[in-house]
Amino acid sequence: MSSNYRNFRNNVAWLLLFLEAVFIALFYYLFSNDDASRSSISYPVFQDVSHMVIFGFGFFLTVLRRYGFSSTGFNLLIIVLGVQCSILTEGLLLSFFQMENEDVLKRVTKAVVSMTAVAISTGAVLGKTNPVQLILMTVVEIIVFHMSSWISSIFLQVPDSINMMHVHLFGAYFSLAVSSRFSEPSPSSEKNASTPKSDLLSMLGTLFLWVFWPSFNSVLLVDGKRKAIYNTYFALAVSAVTAFMLSILTTKDGKFKMTHIHSAVLAGGITVGYTAHSIEYPWIAMILGLLSSAITILGSYCSQRCLKPAFKIHDTAGVHFTFGLPAVLGALAHVVLLVIKNWADSPRLGYLVMIHIGTFCLTFSVALVTGFITGLILNLKLFKTVPVSKYFEDQFYWEFPHLAVGF
Amino acid sequence: MSSNYRNFRNNVAWLLLFLEAVFIALFYYLFSNDDASRSSISYPVFQDVSHMVIFGFGFFLTVLRRYGFSSTGFNLLIIVLGVQCSILTEGLLLSFFQMENEDVLKRVTKAVVSMTAVAISTGAVLGKTNPVQLILMTVVEIIVFHMSSWISSIFLQVPDSINMMHVHLFGAYFSLAVSSRFSEPSPSSEKNASTPKSDLLSMLGTLFLWVFWPSFNSVLLVDGKRKAIYNTYFALAVSAVTAFMLSILTTKDGKFKMTHIHSAVLAGGITVGYTAHSIEYPWIAMILGLLSSAITILGSYCSQRCLKPAFKIHDTAGVHFTFGLPAVLGALAHVVLLVIKNWADSPRLGYLVMIHIGTFCLTFSVALVTGFITGLILNLKLFKTVPVSKYFEDQFYWEFPHLAVGF
Amino acid sequence: MSSNYRNFRNNVAWLLLFLEAVFIALFYYLFSNDDASRSSISYPVFQDVSHMVIFGFGFFLTVLRRYGFSSTGFNLLIIVLGVQCSILTEGLLLSFFQMENEDVLKRVTKAVVSMTAVAISTGAVLGKTNPVQLILMTVVEIIVFHMSSWISSIFLQVPDSINMMHVHLFGAYFSLAVSSRFSEPSPSSEKNASTPKSDLLSMLGTLFLWVFWPSFNSVLLVDGKRKAIYNTYFALAVSAVTAFMLSILTTKDGKFKMTHIHSAVLAGGITVGYTAHSIEYPWIAMILGLLSSAITILGSYCSQRCLKPAFKIHDTAGVHFTFGLPAVLGALAHVVLLVIKNWADSPRLGYLVMIHIGTFCLTFSVALVTGFITGLILNLKLFKTVPVSKYFEDQFYWEFPHLAVGF
Repeated sequence: MSSNYRNFRNNVAWLLLFLEAVFIALFYYLFSNDDASRSSISYPVFQDVSHMVIFGFGFFLTVLRRYGFSSTGFNLLIIVLGVQCSILTEGLLLSFFQMENEDVLKRVTKAVVSMTAVAISTGAVLGKTNPVQLILMTVVEIIVFHMSSWISSIFLQVPDSINMMHVHLFGAYFSLAVSSRFSEPSPSSEKNASTPKSDLLSMLGTLFLWVFWPSFNSVLLVDGKRKAIYNTYFALAVSAVTAFMLSILTTKDGKFKMTHIHSAVLAGGITVGYTAHSIEYPWIAMILGLLSSAITILGSYCSQRCLKPAFKIHDTAGVHFTFGLPAVLGALAHVVLLVIKNWADSPRLGYLVMIHIGTFCLTFSVALVTGFITGLILNLKLFKTVPVSKYFEDQFYWEFPHLAVGF
Repeated sequence: MSSNYRNFRNNVAWLLLFLEAVFIALFYYLFSNDDASRSSISYPVFQDVSHMVIFGFGFFLTVLRRYGFSSTGFNLLIIVLGVQCSILTEGLLLSFFQMENEDVLKRVTKAVVSMTAVAISTGAVLGKTNPVQLILMTVVEIIVFHMSSWISSIFLQVPDSINMMHVHLFGAYFSLAVSSRFSEPSPSSEKNASTPKSDLLSMLGTLFLWVFWPSFNSVLLVDGKRKAIYNTYFALAVSAVTAFMLSILTTKDGKFKMTHIHSAVLAGGITVGYTAHSIEYPWIAMILGLLSSAITILGSYCSQRCLKPAFKIHDTAGVHFTFGLPAVLGALAHVVLLVIKNWADSPRLGYLVMIHIGTFCLTFSVALVTGFITGLILNLKLFKTVPVSKYFEDQFYWEFPHLAVGF
Repeated sequence: MSSNYRNFRNNVAWLLLFLEAVFIALFYYLFSNDDASRSSISYPVFQDVSHMVIFGFGFFLTVLRRYGFSSTGFNLLIIVLGVQCSILTEGLLLSFFQMENEDVLKRVTKAVVSMTAVAISTGAVLGKTNPVQLILMTVVEIIVFHMSSWISSIFLQVPDSINMMHVHLFGAYFSLAVSSRFSEPSPSSEKNASTPKSDLLSMLGTLFLWVFWPSFNSVLLVDGKRKAIYNTYFALAVSAVTAFMLSILTTKDGKFKMTHIHSAVLAGGITVGYTAHSIEYPWIAMILGLLSSAITILGSYCSQRCLKPAFKIHDTAGVHFTFGLPAVLGALAHVVLLVIKNWADSPRLGYLVMIHIGTFCLTFSVALVTGFITGLILNLKLFKTVPVSKYFEDQFYWEFPHLAVGF
């Protein structure tokens, strides 16, 4: 290892120190005492969401054979940095618009929920970024996401709970745009593949995400919590069944494929994110679950055949079909259900449809544009882009205790 | 792979599609709006039970060296299918008897609890059934279980919370009867064994089940929740100690055996399932925990020496002694404790004893008879029974990313 | 294996049977009926703590390459034994001082919290003790810990919630003193090392501990629960960032080191344990998180270079810097914050500072002295100390299903 590279590595430490010092200073200036005696957040549900983001996503991303340490380790680093950054961004925006602060637990919860966007984004660039790039991406992404949410909230008056559900959409398309600026890995590389063991660990993370998704969809709601819980559960159940069904039909030998299961079992939860609290009958949630799982598996099938050669975007963990497409479907379903519900009341209907399509387009385009710019910046020479031969390699970042065979 | 078999595999997909379409249609007809503003179910406790069934049982069953994907994957599929089926069966029975519906979260919780029966059953036939057989077994078992519960509830007037605790008994003996109709694996097969790694993953699942068992025993109760929680905790604690103690005494070298620990640490929780809310003093729960763990380990010791050669029933995950025997002990203890409590009130005593023995015998015999019939049906040529040489083999069902050595 | 050793192994079983019989008998005499209709303990938070201790510590300790079964298995055994012992010790002390009993769930919770001390202690002697030694250490340690707590509580009138937070301090220094009496492993032994796989499993446990730490710090509090939760969260977040930062600066190549991450991400939670409910502003908790993580990594750096050759204490899982140093820092911070808060009220200030320094010194010295004595006793010939060549070896205690390569 050249001493030059070692110096660059030390920059990670100084960058972290600088960020942490700024965060503590801002917390000192911005954070007044919390007088709230009660909060609308239930602590056990907050705990579920925290578990999901720290543990669930950490292990969900251990798909690569030699990237387990980085997947779980960097995920933890990114989340804890981002949560602080997210609370501060929200606090700065609140103090700028001179609005009242919410209680601390609610602010932490919102920060953790919004960090899902970044956790998803790391999936698309998994194994291709160095820690400096990852940290900068996190900071930029979470600030831009909050900006975009605030524009929706102030100018389009979309309620906060809907804005927050754009995390999947934002996270997926932001990272696809970032990823388009990174070199593709060599297709023959063995490292860009899973082993049965890494797939099983990833299943462990997936099951955590699956079980806790109802908490995620209900944590920020004030009304309709119970409805959101059971509608999400039904949607997840049907998408799990559909995932197994379509996995058989799309593989060569009629076998199941673990990657399909990982990505498609969660699709239902993402899709009903916008509407879980307002869906009247479980069968609607179930149909949405079925459609979302179908769109995910077909998306995964197509993106390997058509999209990848055309757009040349490499998406390590498949966040496009796992999180992007179900979120688009969910936003669409949200509008359709609004149209059905408010059919009689046409002036209000037009207004509602307009603002929801508006906020969708806004989030989508902000994600793509800022993602593209971020990707350009991260590929400056300054940031010592990882060479393609060192992609997906834990040993590039971690001191290994023993180089065990078969890991 | 012959194209013939590929066609059969596709049948799994069509079967799933058919079932899911039926379920959605029935949900459409049966599920009215939920008006309940409150529920007797606490969401965090429901979450624990859901976690236990999806994650805990999934990893509890990863004992086989080459069956990790199927253990966790098929468990998820079975549970989500069965939960929908269970809600509908209960709904149909309720509408048939023109009784009022409970709130949705309670119905989902009851469905998840009753699915434990099927999760247990998959243990006995683990690695020996193909997905079509597994799906059919699930549907038949959950419907029969609800029927049997309803007969107890309507004719014997056993309270619902007791009926639900028959899941362990029903699940174990149903699957033993099913398993009796399947060919035995060849005794020399290496695949029907665990590796240290699969044992450790199974320990992971076991610890989840252990930790969440108090939630399982208390989730459906209205009164005595706290009592059920701590009595279950004490029973589990003593069974864990007893498991270690007897493991030493029954192995050749005086070493511990992981299989003993896996099965016996949970025994206490199963045994006090019927009585946890009514046991007055912790020492009673502790003695039940000790006895149940003892019966499990002795059962495991005996079933390898005497029962297996005699009955020729192969029980992959040992559900007979892990779930069956402790449940029998629990039902017995329930009657004994009733006798002690109501000693003075002899007419009521006779009645109580009679109905509890009645419901036990009913559940037991329904499980055996329907299990046997199900086993016969599943072995029809139509369902393409798995050849013995392909038992316990993930690669028969899953597309493998890379055939890594040492997995 | 000589029959002599087999006989000794059977002693484990008889010891367990004896202890369990004593426990059940004492429960019979001591445990009156629980009349409390409500408890100050929230069940989901209790569940988190139980999960942390059983599952989190179990997997946190799977760092050694060939000690996974013992790490998770013995941890379970130790915890369930110790919880019963802890409840009884507390009950005996209460009945001796003729004080009123608390409700059962609170007593179980306190027992589980105090068992953290033993879970930490097993880390320092991990792989070097046989089960008899481990069981005796557990029983002695938990009784001494309660004695020490009671002296603090009766004579120094320190509130219970502060006393309980001494678990980290007590557990760490007790076990260091015990460990000083055990032979050191040969430095060339490969077994005293981790593999990437065992490190990843340990990360799994660490993330569980991380996520549930806010529950641990708030479970026994009556006031200030929410404050304790978010202050702990902030402290943990900053220590995670600091861990990554300092890991780079202290390794040779500027890489991250998994051991640093494992130990330092938790430091913040331990340090704010004493003060989490009373810290007014999050930035104070954040600075404490930063300092504690720094002290942990610097401690780990120094203890390998200076302390270990000097004191000749081998500390397998590094509990000295993982739990000991952050706890010392926390106790110090507690006093400093008290001084700042009560600056104006000088008589009260002197009193408060005195009792908190007193209880710290008491706990510290009791831990060292009794730990040393326990270490002496455990090394009597009677207890058949494990030979150094059999250190860190699962196969010495467990029957192995198959000796798989690469585990």
